[in-house]
Amino acid sequence: MSVPTSTTIHPDDAAAVRLDREHVFHSWSAQAALDPLVLAGGSGSHVWDASGRRYLDFSSQLVNTNIGHQHPRVVEAIRAQASTLTTIAPSTAALVRGEAAERVLAHAPAGFSKVFFTNGGADANENAIRMARLHTGRDKVVSHYRSYHGNTGAAVVATGDWRRVPNEYARGHVHVFGPYPYRSEFWSTTPEQEAERALHHLERVIQSEGPTSVAAILLETIPGTAGVLVPPPGYLRGVREIADRYGIVLVLDEVMAGFGRTGRWLALDGFDVVPDLITFAKGVNSGYVPAGGVMISDAIARTFDVRVFPGGLTYSGHPLAMAAIVATLDAMAHEGIVDHAAAVGRDVIGPGLAALAARNPLVGEVRGLGVFWAVELVRDRATREPVDASVIGRVRAEALARGLLPFTADNRVHVVPPCVVTPDEAAHGLEILGDVLDAVAADVL
Amino acid sequence: MSVPTSTTIHPDDAAAVRLDREHVFHSWSAQAALDPLVLAGGSGSHVWDASGRRYLDFSSQLVNTNIGHQHPRVVEAIRAQASTLTTIAPSTAALVRGEAAERVLAHAPAGFSKVFFTNGGADANENAIRMARLHTGRDKVVSHYRSYHGNTGAAVVATGDWRRVPNEYARGHVHVFGPYPYRSEFWSTTPEQEAERALHHLERVIQSEGPTSVAAILLETIPGTAGVLVPPPGYLRGVREIADRYGIVLVLDEVMAGFGRTGRWLALDGFDVVPDLITFAKGVNSGYVPAGGVMISDAIARTFDVRVFPGGLTYSGHPLAMAAIVATLDAMAHEGIVDHAAAVGRDVIGPGLAALAARNPLVGEVRGLGVFWAVELVRDRATREPVDASVIGRVRAEALARGLLPFTADNRVHVVPPCVVTPDEAAHGLEILGDVLDAVAADVL
Ligand SMILES: Cc1ncc(COP(=O)(O)O)c(C=O)c1O
Ligand SMILES: Cc1ncc(COP(=O)(O)O)c(C=O)c1O
Repeated sequence: MSVPTSTTIHPDDAAAVRLDREHVFHSWSAQAALDPLVLAGGSGSHVWDASGRRYLDFSSQLVNTNIGHQHPRVVEAIRAQASTLTTIAPSTAALVRGEAAERVLAHAPAGFSKVFFTNGGADANENAIRMARLHTGRDKVVSHYRSYHGNTGAAVVATGDWRRVPNEYARGHVHVFGPYPYRSEFWSTTPEQEAERALHHLERVIQSEGPTSVAAILLETIPGTAGVLVPPPGYLRGVREIADRYGIVLVLDEVMAGFGRTGRWLALDGFDVVPDLITFAKGVNSGYVPAGGVMISDAIARTFDVRVFPGGLTYSGHPLAMAAIVATLDAMAHEGIVDHAAAVGRDVIGPGLAALAARNPLVGEVRGLGVFWAVELVRDRATREPVDASVIGRVRAEALARGLLPFTADNRVHVVPPCVVTPDEAAHGLEILGDVLDAVAADVL
Repeated sequence: MSVPTSTTIHPDDAAAVRLDREHVFHSWSAQAALDPLVLAGGSGSHVWDASGRRYLDFSSQLVNTNIGHQHPRVVEAIRAQASTLTTIAPSTAALVRGEAAERVLAHAPAGFSKVFFTNGGADANENAIRMARLHTGRDKVVSHYRSYHGNTGAAVVATGDWRRVPNEYARGHVHVFGPYPYRSEFWSTTPEQEAERALHHLERVIQSEGPTSVAAILLETIPGTAGVLVPPPGYLRGVREIADRYGIVLVLDEVMAGFGRTGRWLALDGFDVVPDLITFAKGVNSGYVPAGGVMISDAIARTFDVRVFPGGLTYSGHPLAMAAIVATLDAMAHEGIVDHAAAVGRDVIGPGLAALAARNPLVGEVRGLGVFWAVELVRDRATREPVDASVIGRVRAEALARGLLPFTADNRVHVVPPCVVTPDEAAHGLEILGDVLDAVAADVL
């Protein structure tokens, strides 16, 4: 079905590689060794190059094409807006921008009635941090070591993972460990204990930093790139309580987890928590046009009624991006895409990955929900020692060779297809992934 | 011609205002007092609302629609790319991305062969700063007080103007005064002396900071929002010499000044200077789709051949943005838009503003080139005391009432129409501006 079929290279693909290697500087990489996959088209859960190689997209690119590739309704909305008015200054009012804000807020908890639009996830977090600091009059931002919040000055230092380390030029950031039952930092033995101890740790750090110096706790509702670390019961509610106890703004980053990924509109809908600010990007319009933003609770919005908000960007509320948001959220609602993602996760991906874990000794743990899953690969199930990069490289190469585009991070394969993935496609992708992991396990274990 | 004609409010405009006031959080403002201009369409140098009010756009929105509104060729390229493939991960290769990089680099000085794409100007500067720091192994970034570089963590602290002050959470930033003959910080009496003394000041600050701690000098080639401060002869060449003397990376920010605005492809083409990094956004695709980037000189690109570049973003090299870049730069080349901008500046705007300055006592100085001009308003030509915000507010309101959309900043009106503005449109806009300033002068002086 989606196995690469052609071996002749189309001239467009050859040109794409040549121009890429000559002129395009890539993210998070050393440039000399890159060998990028060429893409020229897509539809639904598939992408392809011009030479006829076709891949089932189990990555949603960077976990953003929640509505699948080239959804006709979103494409048409972009085309129509392009013909009407592509770009206006953020200080103006435009109907499509108001409609996009209204659509986004329809999925927020009660008490949120304003949106500040940005170009992506990093600048959404930048502006949420700015709001929290000015609202509280405090400096510090507490976030998880196991997190990613974006590549700009404050967002990258709020980030906990290795990407922070060479970029540590912002002050006022403090990191804590979050709950991760499979690799507890707290010597816990149950998820409940992990939640309790992670909360204790968070509160002790805040107390030790000086609670009146802490502006915000900034967390991914479900840490994504860090490994789809679904928080154990009670954690997020406990974080909310700690934030309230010390007058701290709670920011939930829904950039990757939001807008359908978990089988709910927002990931936070699955937990007993209402934050003060919600950042979003990716799924809000599946990345068809760069966009992100901050949903603002009324208490924080009021702070800036008479006080100048000192942040802004040329493309805030860009009409093309707004048109894509309106069409994406409408299509997701009308087509029941969020419930579909929940069902595929529950009925196909969850059971499929459980079966894989039961049979393949490389698999240390599988976890997730909706179309948001991680498969953690280990050299040894007892010690949980992660496989090294070469094993992941091999999994990736073999999956691609069999027509599956995977998402890999550290020692993990994330199963993150579009929300529109059909049960058959999901089953087929899992079959390929299973074959690949069986072959690799036979070889490396 | 472009006077607002209708007084009945179209329901779409009413809805735009209502949704905006309810749900849209705006940049750089207190939210309660806003009264945004509604826009619903545009073409060339005009924009309009749904009620039939039409404005000659002397702002290019945020000085970004260099190619004018709704250029058919760019609109068509966006529509075509939307139908083909809207979004892919930055790690892939795509023909349109390579082509966009090639088009951008065609306008760079010799010795630049790579581009890192971003979503806008702020993240372009963020990544240029990151490259400079890692390339040099040093921390500090020296920039002008009179500057704007974007709203994210490092970019906003590199910024010199008031927008930095509430956002000062990044370390390693140092600010200097740049040349500004009309309001010299150096007691100079000629532009040449101003350049010399500004260079002396820059070098003394660098020596005092410790030259081996300075990674980058980051300057707008022509500071834009700060007042179209065309650097006097010798300044930029002198900055290059200082950068070379101390092994410092020179970053020129061409976000506002680049891609036609000055009547040259890049503003730096008008000066005897080759930087190490060039940041861009706005004019590169007229903002039709959010995009920006960094042009990277070969010496700096080589640093990241084998060393990981620790920066990235989901929408780096976004296909829709890339298609808009290719079409914009091709259309600008084929239609001679850059030369056109130079001619309109030389033959119409320059002489028109000079005549205005000669006749109207509110005008302290006019300066600029191409379609990039500032009119500095003063209470008193002798003391050069700036007019206050209420005067500018009045100029703005009266211009809008006469069908001219102006760009105002501090005590200035910037004359920054699209590069495609016709001589007649430019003359007509200057006539309106002249009438407005005459009326206001009669009233306030
Ligand atoms: C949770 C989270 N926050 C923020 C970001 C940054 O978003 P962007 O790449 O659009 O800046 C990402 C990107 O992967 C993310 O996963
Ligand atoms: C010179 C300059 N640099 C950077 C920026 C920031 O660009 P953006 O608003 O796209 O982040 C601007 C925006 O006006 C600018 O004028």
